[in-house]
Amino acid sequence: MTGLRLSDVRRSTDRLADGREIIFFDRPGAPKRVVDDRRPLTASTASSQLRRDPMLDEYVVIASHRQDRTYLPPADECPLCPSSGGRRTELPVPDYQVAVFENRFSALPGPGHGRCEVICFSSDHAVSFANLDDDRAELVLSAWIDRSIELAALPGVEQVFCFENRGEEIGVTLSHPHGQIYAYPFVTPRTTRMLEVAQRYREQTGGILVDDVVAAERRDGSRVIAENAHWTAFVPEAARWPVEVHLYPKQRVPDLPGLDAQQRAAFGPLYLDVLQRFDRLYATPLPYISAWHQAPLQIGRELLGLHLEVFSIRRAPGKLKYLAGSESGMGAFIGDVQPERTAERLRLG
Amino acid sequence: MTGLRLSDVRRSTDRLADGREIIFFDRPGAPKRVVDDRRPLTASTASSQLRRDPMLDEYVVIASHRQDRTYLPPADECPLCPSSGGRRTELPVPDYQVAVFENRFSALPGPGHGRCEVICFSSDHAVSFANLDDDRAELVLSAWIDRSIELAALPGVEQVFCFENRGEEIGVTLSHPHGQIYAYPFVTPRTTRMLEVAQRYREQTGGILVDDVVAAERRDGSRVIAENAHWTAFVPEAARWPVEVHLYPKQRVPDLPGLDAQQRAAFGPLYLDVLQRFDRLYATPLPYISAWHQAPLQIGRELLGLHLEVFSIRRAPGKLKYLAGSESGMGAFIGDVQPERTAERLRLG
Repeated sequence: MTGLRLSDVRRSTDRLADGREIIFFDRPGAPKRVVDDRRPLTASTASSQLRRDPMLDEYVVIASHRQDRTYLPPADECPLCPSSGGRRTELPVPDYQVAVFENRFSALPGPGHGRCEVICFSSDHAVSFANLDDDRAELVLSAWIDRSIELAALPGVEQVFCFENRGEEIGVTLSHPHGQIYAYPFVTPRTTRMLEVAQRYREQTGGILVDDVVAAERRDGSRVIAENAHWTAFVPEAARWPVEVHLYPKQRVPDLPGLDAQQRAAFGPLYLDVLQRFDRLYATPLPYISAWHQAPLQIGRELLGLHLEVFSIRRAPGKLKYLAGSESGMGAFIGDVQPERTAERLRLG
Repeated sequence: MTGLRLSDVRRSTDRLADGREIIFFDRPGAPKRVVDDRRPLTASTASSQLRRDPMLDEYVVIASHRQDRTYLPPADECPLCPSSGGRRTELPVPDYQVAVFENRFSALPGPGHGRCEVICFSSDHAVSFANLDDDRAELVLSAWIDRSIELAALPGVEQVFCFENRGEEIGVTLSHPHGQIYAYPFVTPRTTRMLEVAQRYREQTGGILVDDVVAAERRDGSRVIAENAHWTAFVPEAARWPVEVHLYPKQRVPDLPGLDAQQRAAFGPLYLDVLQRFDRLYATPLPYISAWHQAPLQIGRELLGLHLEVFSIRRAPGKLKYLAGSESGMGAFIGDVQPERTAERLRLG
């Protein structure tokens, strides 16, 4: 039943005990979400600072209050499960489909200087994104779109970043299926660099870099792992990570709100297919980072293209890729796996 | 007995069984190093590729042959210890002071396209850089200088990077005290970015960015942790890592060969002091990456300044900093520790 109209998503918003916003996203027909959060929470005292690294002209966020954030709690203390009986979690409801709330341990400074949200993909603690069905994936996508629009309207927000970290190997502190949404008060370093490169390409060739790169990958085909009518998934020619797949809509849009109904409906099936291929690579589920690249809100919207980069640090069973001197010191990535070989394994897997 | 003249370093060069170069660096008076490598080694079949990521206009190295490199061997199989009796290592001598040889598992493609070397800081398996004495640190520095000059003369080399990865937590596969030297066939992404920023600063202010940044840090003083007549060590204002210290010579030079005798003699005492402070932070030695930033060989030599960046991913006992979505996806670092707090701990430590 994909083909969800955004206007058909049931969206209900409320406040947690300490004043943080919580928003539920449900398919039509779900029960009403009634929040009754009586936890004795004091208002969060987040005190992040934005600092600028003058040598690289990049912002760095200093968020020292997060050192004490919840760290790998046992499943029966998971703060992202629905509340039940006397146990009260961040979700003060008996059940939910997709829910978003302001992060209690926000990395960004807060009002006027960004915002951090948590997005729960399911109330079921034991699933992962790869196990969701097409309907749920589409509902998550509609929540990402909603948040991208709403957060863009906050003062001081320059770029919205929806992402998921999955797996203890990359430092995930809660195993419940969830992602995060950062509304940055600056254009991120990586997007800044991509925009500079796209601008130079435009001046030199008159073309749009992302269009030409995706067209070349599709023409070549050796690294394409899956596609459908509206999306293509491929391992990039210069992959930095042992497993790395980029998903692009065939028709370029600047950001998630720019996707049309057909693109939205077609995303879930391809993304779930990619994630399931990831999990079949090894005996254990693949740790990964899934990162939506959206154009910033004020600049570069005609030059950059929405895409999703999904990548893993696992390079072999029991072996991880570490960012050591060359990567962390010089930004020079040494890839351990031939991208065509990764594409082949994912295509056949 | 610091104040070693480069011309007084005893330098002897030879070949390993498979043709790789090995170079010994000794203080005056050491015995002659006679190499007799009879291991049945076949010539290395490294086959790295340079690929360009068009979206970021950066090179990525694909080095898939390294998947099988030596991984955490037991101490009695360490390939960096001197050879003894029937056991033959990469060092076919009964002892050495500092030794450099071409990496058998080179990340870079080789002749005409870069070179990777290993540098052993001591023949003693059990020490780490922090335990070396001033004399040895100065000898290591003279070896880095030698390699920076020699590698710069190879065709196709654009930048020389001397670095050390220390600790299993950052993926070190051999515990013997050693570092690496990469002679890149390109200017690294991070240096490219630093040069762009320094050029813009020059155009806008007429000043040299690195001089002004170091002067500001010294004037402010709140993050300076140690200094001597020729070097300053401070935590940068926008530190990305939980522990991060930068060491700058007070008189700017573009690269290691640019250091004069006084700067060379003064480096070891300060660096050893910093590393010893690192190891006193926690109950166990601090994993770290130590990265020499040298100006590229052809460009930016009047705008960039030699410095050493030393940083750790340890953010608390038993807790590491992971590069997750914000850092790996967007290049936006979320620091977990107030830089002034880190500086204070290191100053008092």
